[in-house]
Amino acid sequence: MRTEPLFGKAAVVGVGLIGGSLGMAIRSRSLAGEVIGIGRSPEALQAALDHGAVDRVSLSYGDLSGCDLVIVAVPVGSTAGVLRQMSPHLTPGVLVTDVGSTKVRIVEESRSVLPQGAVFIGGHPMAGSEKEGVAGADPYLFENAFYVITPGPETPEDSLRKLIGMVEGIGAKPVLMDPVDHDLSVAAVSHLPHLVAATLVNCLFDFPGSGKMSLLAAGGFRDTTRIAAGNPGMWRDIFMTNREFILKALSAFSKRLDEFREAVESGDDLKIYHLLDRARTLKAGMPARTRGYLPALWEIVVTVPDRPGIIGLMAGILGNAGINISDIEILRVREGEGGTIRLAFATGEEQDRAAALLNESGIPARKRGN
Amino acid sequence: MRTEPLFGKAAVVGVGLIGGSLGMAIRSRSLAGEVIGIGRSPEALQAALDHGAVDRVSLSYGDLSGCDLVIVAVPVGSTAGVLRQMSPHLTPGVLVTDVGSTKVRIVEESRSVLPQGAVFIGGHPMAGSEKEGVAGADPYLFENAFYVITPGPETPEDSLRKLIGMVEGIGAKPVLMDPVDHDLSVAAVSHLPHLVAATLVNCLFDFPGSGKMSLLAAGGFRDTTRIAAGNPGMWRDIFMTNREFILKALSAFSKRLDEFREAVESGDDLKIYHLLDRARTLKAGMPARTRGYLPALWEIVVTVPDRPGIIGLMAGILGNAGINISDIEILRVREGEGGTIRLAFATGEEQDRAAALLNESGIPARKRGN
Repeated sequence: MRTEPLFGKAAVVGVGLIGGSLGMAIRSRSLAGEVIGIGRSPEALQAALDHGAVDRVSLSYGDLSGCDLVIVAVPVGSTAGVLRQMSPHLTPGVLVTDVGSTKVRIVEESRSVLPQGAVFIGGHPMAGSEKEGVAGADPYLFENAFYVITPGPETPEDSLRKLIGMVEGIGAKPVLMDPVDHDLSVAAVSHLPHLVAATLVNCLFDFPGSGKMSLLAAGGFRDTTRIAAGNPGMWRDIFMTNREFILKALSAFSKRLDEFREAVESGDDLKIYHLLDRARTLKAGMPARTRGYLPALWEIVVTVPDRPGIIGLMAGILGNAGINISDIEILRVREGEGGTIRLAFATGEEQDRAAALLNESGIPARKRGN
Repeated sequence: MRTEPLFGKAAVVGVGLIGGSLGMAIRSRSLAGEVIGIGRSPEALQAALDHGAVDRVSLSYGDLSGCDLVIVAVPVGSTAGVLRQMSPHLTPGVLVTDVGSTKVRIVEESRSVLPQGAVFIGGHPMAGSEKEGVAGADPYLFENAFYVITPGPETPEDSLRKLIGMVEGIGAKPVLMDPVDHDLSVAAVSHLPHLVAATLVNCLFDFPGSGKMSLLAAGGFRDTTRIAAGNPGMWRDIFMTNREFILKALSAFSKRLDEFREAVESGDDLKIYHLLDRARTLKAGMPARTRGYLPALWEIVVTVPDRPGIIGLMAGILGNAGINISDIEILRVREGEGGTIRLAFATGEEQDRAAALLNESGIPARKRGN
């Protein structure tokens, strides 16, 4: 017996990386009877069809008629305009959601723009990729990812339940939040770090001799500024739509920065120690042992000679025993001599067996402490 | 015919991770006739002996007599005190160097503390490990690492040549810098990022509801704040000895931060874009394709099913062809379905061959653009 899909006719407006991945995920789990891709670029729509992201495509908002789910997956700066344009074509009872990185403004705008009978609930899937466009779309992008949903007091329970159903259906973990809490949170954990990373790079190059300086930039600088390589247009939009909360986060940051500066200025070693120690302790309490949004990993560290085939040998030993390597990272290598490799597994049992098997094979492996 | 070692009797004062690794490296390359380990803790000295870091050990600076090389590898806050204490025991002509993360202060202090006839040249090996103490010491720690040397105008050429010889002998790359340039550089590329990372963590936890907030902390926050997990005592010492230059770097950072804040406050989207774009462009020009201090890597990205043994299969194909994997990183995995893996090679030729071999074996692999 076939169960009824959650939605009859669903539409994805904007078929890029996120929209395309959502279309694929909804189709592969049969969460809707059909998925229509709507966009402005015939080429992008054709690509979405070719990649199996949608069942059919249209250049016209007129095709939204009869949809009971509409996902707006356009850049956050364009969402309000798209909502306004599609508004006349919506069918009463439709559930409209978005995927933008900020929520307060779009939730407010949806109230003034959407017709009576349309239900808007903001959404923010915490997933991404190094790729861009529908060519990088992936039906499993949301697997184990947190997916923030921001219902309001007026949100009908039935609509909320259906959106939660969709989120769980595509393998993500729904997190219900107030739009204000969401926007302050992403300001503090995402937008402020981005602003700070860009500022670290910009100020480094204010110094004469920055060329030789950057020679000394080690892993610490690279890690700290990695996100500064992000798409400036996308991030400008995010900064523009979340200004209020970014300024709030920036103000908290500046207060703490001043405190640190004063401690350095006055040579207050106790205070410096306290600030560093507090950060380390708080950081240690955060979920650091996850990669992307996967569950915590069980790790072993292996010391191996650096010769062709050694990773294959090691992986072969584990593969033959049916042990899956969830993550692998070369911590240090030295030409022609050897290196240290970190392996991670999904369970403690696999971790135990892997360490034992490798040690038996003469490859020194030790479990990494918690 | 045996060549004469660079040094006759060498001493390492402080046999921790760096001192122990230097001892091992000097011994394994026969750069000195013998290496004496000097320290205050009998247990640490015994461990250094057990790990083969030194030939013999002593609790007394008296054993420095007759040494022509003394490496002080104690925490940067203790270096001046150690120089003072060992000073009466030095033999004229001895070359003294250190491994501290800041150089101006210690170079100055060495002038007032060391006797006539002793030559001090500051050193800073840009290498480290996640491990601590001599148990983590590694004779190959400095392989391919930059090793800053800070001679002054009064440094005898012969002593400088010998120190460069030692640095090259242990596999590192010597970088000659003025102490002032060095300290400003490490302030900008290491100490300031550390201060900023700690401040990002500290200010996140100033918000009520930081628990749920940290749930949304993704890879960006983790990368940006990774170094905040560093040893607070070691970093306090670094902050205390490099105050002047850290404040200089912090001042440049604050100026850029104010500029960004004003752009956000006034909603100046052009200015925000410009700042983000400048950071991205400058960042792209930095040596991002290195790991640790290894040379640039040639990368391919592989899409593979996520099943036991797949990494082994892939690595086996490359190993059989004599191709060495310099780095491997799992970019994304999804339970039971597949993932994306980044492989890196030391040469473009290996990159070409690896991509071709994997594709021939039905494993889709594409070269990553520059």
